Amino acid sequence: MNINQTERDAVYKTIFSRRDVRAEFKSDPIPDDVLGRILKAAHHAPSVGFMQPWDFIVVKNQQTKEKIKHGFELAHAQSAAMFTDDKSQSYKKLKLEGILESPMGICVTCDRSRNGPIILGRTIKPEMDLYSTVCAIQNLWLAARAENIGIGWVSIVHDDVIKEALQIPDDINIVAYLCVGYVSHFNDQPDLEKHGWLARRPLESAIHFDSWNNHSDNK
Amino acid sequence: MNINQTERDAVYKTIFSRRDVRAEFKSDPIPDDVLGRILKAAHHAPSVGFMQPWDFIVVKNQQTKEKIKHGFELAHAQSAAMFTDDKSQSYKKLKLEGILESPMGICVTCDRSRNGPIILGRTIKPEMDLYSTVCAIQNLWLAARAENIGIGWVSIVHDDVIKEALQIPDDINIVAYLCVGYVSHFNDQPDLEKHGWLARRPLESAIHFDSWNNHSDNK
Repeated sequence: MNINQTERDAVYKTIFSRRDVRAEFKSDPIPDDVLGRILKAAHHAPSVGFMQPWDFIVVKNQQTKEKIKHGFELAHAQSAAMFTDDKSQSYKKLKLEGILESPMGICVTCDRSRNGPIILGRTIKPEMDLYSTVCAIQNLWLAARAENIGIGWVSIVHDDVIKEALQIPDDINIVAYLCVGYVSHFNDQPDLEKHGWLARRPLESAIHFDSWNNHSDNK
Repeated sequence: MNINQTERDAVYKTIFSRRDVRAEFKSDPIPDDVLGRILKAAHHAPSVGFMQPWDFIVVKNQQTKEKIKHGFELAHAQSAAMFTDDKSQSYKKLKLEGILESPMGICVTCDRSRNGPIILGRTIKPEMDLYSTVCAIQNLWLAARAENIGIGWVSIVHDDVIKEALQIPDDINIVAYLCVGYVSHFNDQPDLEKHGWLARRPLESAIHFDSWNNHSDNK
């Protein structure tokens, strides 16, 4: 099946305009058929040994979201204390999640024992099941962007808070808690780039040829 | 920036027709501008705290590829011995990589100490940098598919083999070795599904509502 140039351009447009959304969520509900399409895209990610170790817990209950938000606030205060004074002040000013503003959360998990102890392709690199789950998250993120829906990955919350809020068994791994919703707009740049937290690396600095030491910059 | 329905359909077409390619590689070289577009897409993945911890080592040297292939053969034999007799026989018949048939490899790494020890968003979940790198891989994979280029992720090789072959420093983490090339065709189904290794889970079995125990199947 061939992808033509128009289709290719649409894929690049989606990739380059995808954002980690925090402040721009609207409360409009997401129709079930749209949610179904996004989750189907996630479910068609590559997975090691066709293990499909992921699950998706859709969170709409207000009390449940408030538990996650409270967990964020505690973890955020704990995190702010890890930075030096100057950086800590800047850190506290950043908007880093939209847990209550977005109409929906999606928790993405990894069942590391699914399909037994020996998984094709994971015999040498046991972390491959977690990586497969992240591939599903990126599929979900791009599918959402193609539906003009924003995603914000909240990583500043302890796994045990999410497990308790969503009654997730101990042996299931929490990979992500995503805020999901329509947005007022998608920003042109990532928030942290815009606010001068860190700059985007030049692409050339990330490319090497045949050896780590044979750098694009050296050519 | 709005994504219209035609563009959205192109994104879904790309997601659903993406494959983990092993047997279908052609040796045709990949033009530099095409490679540049794919790597730019990878570089525009989300990253925790805008850390951009990834690097891409493009592998075209024949001797280097042969070192990786040799590493695969050793790890593959080691892996085959982990399965029960029946499963081991099936395993040995599967084609699991196209290291020498594809014109190019791309090793994707994660520099876990980039931008210092305290990274925004990684204060609570230290694995977030590895997950960011996997997001870059999935962007790369979909961009490649949009260019009608196949990707095959080879996880059956020890990291130290790749580090030695590509002279990668000890403190850099190997996340993936990808085979990259044009293909004779993209299969309709994943190889492992087609060969009956494992079945695709019904999507419904992966979806829960507000609680792990409130399953789509129970509704």
